[in-house]
Amino acid sequence: MKARVHVSLKSGVLDPQGKAIGNALASLGFTGVGEVRQGKLIEIELEGSDRAAAQAKVEKMCQELLANPVIENYAIELE
Amino acid sequence: MKARVHVSLKSGVLDPQGKAIGNALASLGFTGVGEVRQGKLIEIELEGSDRAAAQAKVEKMCQELLANPVIENYAIELE
Repeated sequence: MKARVHVSLKSGVLDPQGKAIGNALASLGFTGVGEVRQGKLIEIELEGSDRAAAQAKVEKMCQELLANPVIENYAIELE
Repeated sequence: MKARVHVSLKSGVLDPQGKAIGNALASLGFTGVGEVRQGKLIEIELEGSDRAAAQAKVEKMCQELLANPVIENYAIELE
């Protein structure tokens, strides 16, 4: 089973990397671009086919390692 | 309109960051974890409501700035 974890900064947290992308897009001539935010996408191959167990395991991974819950949100998607 | 761009390394391209996450998960005691890959998730606020135009614009952004087509794949999702 494959789990995809989206980790993104909470709204209100400054995102200099996203800001840099926004500025680069503007200097390349793209118009009509508002806020840009950059997050992480982590794909994890998991053994087993128990979706509930996988969800719980990935949730624990997020809390312990993958995300910083002080400034980041995460979303888990199982395939 | 909001566009979400997922940028991930092509399969076969070494991903040291994903490898490091996999090792860290193992050392935290998580078992049954296979390959881990890390990519980027870029969220862009766009003006206007023409989906076809937005898709084309974001496609161009990916080719020019957001992804390195030699080693990365990208997927665009419009909200």
